[in-house]
Amino acid sequence: MLIARVIGTTVATIKDEKLTGRKLLVVQQTDETGKGIGKPFVAIDSVDAGTGDLVLTASGSSARQTTITKDRPVDAVIMAVIDSLEVEGNTTYRKS
Amino acid sequence: MLIARVIGTTVATIKDEKLTGRKLLVVQQTDETGKGIGKPFVAIDSVDAGTGDLVLTASGSSARQTTITKDRPVDAVIMAVIDSLEVEGNTTYRKS
Amino acid sequence: MLIARVIGTTVATIKDEKLTGRKLLVVQQTDETGKGIGKPFVAIDSVDAGTGDLVLTASGSSARQTTITKDRPVDAVIMAVIDSLEVEGNTTYRKS
Amino acid sequence: MLIARVIGTTVATIKDEKLTGRKLLVVQQTDETGKGIGKPFVAIDSVDAGTGDLVLTASGSSARQTTITKDRPVDAVIMAVIDSLEVEGNTTYRKS
Amino acid sequence: MLIARVIGTTVATIKDEKLTGRKLLVVQQTDETGKGIGKPFVAIDSVDAGTGDLVLTASGSSARQTTITKDRPVDAVIMAVIDSLEVEGNTTYRKS
Repeated sequence: MLIARVIGTTVATIKDEKLTGRKLLVVQQTDETGKGIGKPFVAIDSVDAGTGDLVLTASGSSARQTTITKDRPVDAVIMAVIDSLEVEGNTTYRKS
Repeated sequence: MLIARVIGTTVATIKDEKLTGRKLLVVQQTDETGKGIGKPFVAIDSVDAGTGDLVLTASGSSARQTTITKDRPVDAVIMAVIDSLEVEGNTTYRKS
Repeated sequence: MLIARVIGTTVATIKDEKLTGRKLLVVQQTDETGKGIGKPFVAIDSVDAGTGDLVLTASGSSARQTTITKDRPVDAVIMAVIDSLEVEGNTTYRKS
Repeated sequence: MLIARVIGTTVATIKDEKLTGRKLLVVQQTDETGKGIGKPFVAIDSVDAGTGDLVLTASGSSARQTTITKDRPVDAVIMAVIDSLEVEGNTTYRKS
Repeated sequence: MLIARVIGTTVATIKDEKLTGRKLLVVQQTDETGKGIGKPFVAIDSVDAGTGDLVLTASGSSARQTTITKDRPVDAVIMAVIDSLEVEGNTTYRKS
């Protein structure tokens, strides 16, 4: 899974019918401290994440293993909200 | 999903029989403002997107979860047309 | 799908039994004008493509959705020969 | 599979229900000597790996082929702890 | 498929039970001449490849389509040993 931050939202009226009612969040990969390091992409939210949250995203077919993404044409899902990260013995991130 | 712009079209007479009648659009990944940042690739259109539209693309097996791509040898599908993107509190893109 | 050019061929006597009789072509990703931009890789040919042709390749599980690649250990297939590409209103490639 | 080192841990209270009780480790890809070369990512541990261990990670749908990851929304799993690596005739890594 | 060279071996005592008896080889992607161009990774051998051999690797779910990798948590398999490569009319590699 990627460590990523929720940085925004997407509005899309015209979309595959299986996406109706699904929340499309703009996220960006981060390093272990929460610093953005990748290009923005869009993921379906399955855990009610909010803007600013550090989250985990699963991609590919794994993104379709949650109740709300099953059999849907989505290749990225937010499946966890990160409380804290500890790397090399240091707490590199803690949710405020 | 990637944020991408439809930049062109592909004509291919010789193709897998399961692709007959499918629209093959040339797209390019963009950032949250719609600025092109990646190499062009080709995606099947499932939402009647037009040239210039900012769209979402799903890749891999997820690209085969729409009615028109099911069981077909395609690894990228356009499954939404973006109306607007809001990032860090700013509207970074709005469909004109 | 990637836009790619067929640049060569592979001979492999020792291979998984399910690959017997399959044509293994060396391809390289290109931009919309047919200019090579990526590292060479190998794809199974499902449309009788020839050296020099610009083609579309599908990767991952999608590469196994053609009749000749079904259930085989291949992760890239050529599933279309490109006749022409039109980008931003210009014909950027036309098969000669 | 990627050669990677376990560098930390993730705490996430809010997560997909199928992830309850699963250990989420922070890992970083390394070269054949164990030197870190990639961005950190998060993988489910299926072999009781510890911080500092060099491990193998499988990604995508392959990450769901262990007993503890089956049908779960995870795209990376640690499925082996590396004892040693030998490259070009030299032992480039040995677990201490 | 990637063109890759077998450069070493991996010893891993602690691993997913489905990997018992499988050979884990260290490989590196190469260009069409056999020159190494990528980071090392680990693939299951399904064709009895030897160190130094130029091979083809399939990744993702496609890596699980051989008899010895079916339903196992592996995302890369060696499924062919390359005898020769011909690119742009030249023999760029021939097995010695």
